Amino acid sequence: MRTYEEYRQTAEQALTPMLTSLGEIPERLLEAMRYSLEAGGKRLRPVMLLAACEMAGGRTDTALPFACALEMIHTYSLIHDDLPGMDNDDLRRGKPTNHKAFGEGMAVLAGDGLLNAATELMARAALQIGDSRGIRAMEIIMRHAGVTGMIAGQAADLTSEGEMPREDLVTYIHSHKTADLLEAPMEAGLALAGADEETCRIGREYGYHLGLAFQMTDDLLDVTGDAALMGKKTGADAELNKMTWVALRGTDGTAKDAAEQAELAVQAIDRLPWEHTFFTELARGTVSRKQ
Amino acid sequence: MRTYEEYRQTAEQALTPMLTSLGEIPERLLEAMRYSLEAGGKRLRPVMLLAACEMAGGRTDTALPFACALEMIHTYSLIHDDLPGMDNDDLRRGKPTNHKAFGEGMAVLAGDGLLNAATELMARAALQIGDSRGIRAMEIIMRHAGVTGMIAGQAADLTSEGEMPREDLVTYIHSHKTADLLEAPMEAGLALAGADEETCRIGREYGYHLGLAFQMTDDLLDVTGDAALMGKKTGADAELNKMTWVALRGTDGTAKDAAEQAELAVQAIDRLPWEHTFFTELARGTVSRKQ
Repeated sequence: MRTYEEYRQTAEQALTPMLTSLGEIPERLLEAMRYSLEAGGKRLRPVMLLAACEMAGGRTDTALPFACALEMIHTYSLIHDDLPGMDNDDLRRGKPTNHKAFGEGMAVLAGDGLLNAATELMARAALQIGDSRGIRAMEIIMRHAGVTGMIAGQAADLTSEGEMPREDLVTYIHSHKTADLLEAPMEAGLALAGADEETCRIGREYGYHLGLAFQMTDDLLDVTGDAALMGKKTGADAELNKMTWVALRGTDGTAKDAAEQAELAVQAIDRLPWEHTFFTELARGTVSRKQ
Repeated sequence: MRTYEEYRQTAEQALTPMLTSLGEIPERLLEAMRYSLEAGGKRLRPVMLLAACEMAGGRTDTALPFACALEMIHTYSLIHDDLPGMDNDDLRRGKPTNHKAFGEGMAVLAGDGLLNAATELMARAALQIGDSRGIRAMEIIMRHAGVTGMIAGQAADLTSEGEMPREDLVTYIHSHKTADLLEAPMEAGLALAGADEETCRIGREYGYHLGLAFQMTDDLLDVTGDAALMGKKTGADAELNKMTWVALRGTDGTAKDAAEQAELAVQAIDRLPWEHTFFTELARGTVSRKQ
C-alpha cells in the first residue's frame, strides 16, 4: 500500500481529466464545476476508496473512476450546502463560494452537473469492468449519498434549524451528513476488490466510527482550533443552537467521545485479514489533527 | 403493445412506491419530493421508455425502474429550473412551485434527492438484471441528463439570458434541454430489450426529432394556445429576447418546422423492423396537440 499523499495525488490529478472525458461541456458550466472541484482539500474520500481497494488486493486503476465520482459528489454537496437557501456562506476554503463567483443559478447547475457526472463516470467504468463489482460499488455510493444517506442528513439539519440540540438528532444528522460519505469509500473500495458482504460490512463500520470521530473533531476545532483563535469563528457562534457535538457534550465530552469513536474504528478494521496500518493511523490521526 | 394511457398509468402508479422502496426518508424531504413527483403531467418520458422496450420485445417490468428514474430526473430538473436563481417561477401546473411550498433550501434538496434516487433505482435494477443491459440503459440515461446533455442545455439557456435569439443557440438549447430527455427513453428502452447499437441509434434519432417538434409546438402554444388566450402569457412575454423558436422563426415558420421535425421522427422510426404505430401517432399527435 502507498502513502496518503500518494493516493491523494493520484485522485487529485485524475479529477479534471475524468470530468472533461465526458464530452463537450458548455464553457461557463465547466468553469463553475472546476472552480469547486479544483479547490483542494484533503481528498479524504477518494484516498480512502483507493486505499481500501488496494488493501483488499484490488487495483487502483479500476477504483479511480469511483474515487473521483465520490469526490465529485462531496463537492456538489458543498456547493449546494453553501447556497443562500441553505447555509448561505460567502466563503469556502478562503475563496468566494460557488454562487458568489458564478451566481446562484449556475451554482445550482454546477452541483447538479457534478452529481450527474459522478454517475456517468461510474456507469461507464462499470460497463468496462464487465462483472458486477462496478455496479455494486455504484449502488453503494449512491445509496450513501442519497435520500436515506447524506441528503437525509442535510434535510434533517435544515428542518432542525433553531431547535435545541438533542442527542438523537445530532447523531442522526452527523451519521448521515458526514459518516455516510466515509462509509461509502470503505464499502465500495472493498466491493471493487471483490470482497464479500461481511467484509464490506466491517469496512462500513470503520467508516461510520471514523465519520463520527471526524465530525466531533471538526466541531471541536471550530471552537478551540486555529480558526477559532484567529477570530474566524467564536465559540458562541459555533455553539449557539447548532446541532454540534460541542453544544451537546461540551469540549471535554466531545474530545472524549471523538477518541472513543476513533478506537471503535480501529477495533473494526482490526477484524480484517489484511495489513491495515494505513487505516489505523488514519483513524488516530483524525482526532489528533489541528485543522 | 398497449395504449399511451395504459403505459402512463403503469408509470404513474409505480413512482411513489419506487421512491419509498429506497428506505427511511426524512418526512419533510419525502413530502417535498412527492409534492412535485405526484403533480401529474403527461409522463411522456416513462411512457416512451416502456413503449420502446415493449416494441422491441422487452418486458415492461424490467423497464419500469428505468422509466420511473427518468421521470424523477425530469421532475428534479423542473424543481431546480423554477428556483429564484434560475427561472424564478411561482407556479407550475397551477400549483405553487416547490420552493414556494417548501422553501428554497428544501427545494434544492428535493431536486438533489430525486436525481440521486433515480440513480439508486437504476443501480439496484441493473444488479437484478444481471447482464449488461441495465447498466447500458443507466449510462444512456445519465449521459442524456448530464453536462453534455440536459444540464448543458440549461446552462446555455442561463448564460444566454438577455441575448438576441440566434439559430445556433436556440437549436443547441432545445436539442439538449428538451430533446436529450426524449432521446434517452428511446435509446434506453431499446437497450433494455437487448437491441443492438444501430437500432438504439435509430431510436435516438426519433427522440431527437420528436424533441424538437415537441419544443417548437410548446413555444407556439405559449403565444397562440389556450394559456396565451386566457392571458396567462402574452405573445410579447413569450417572444421578448427569449431563446424560442417563435422569436426566431415567427408562428408560421415554427408551425412548419414542427411539422417537418415530426415527419423526420416518423421517417426514423419507419426504419425499425417492429410494428410502431404507437410512435408514428405520438410524433404526429405532438404537433397537433392544443395544450
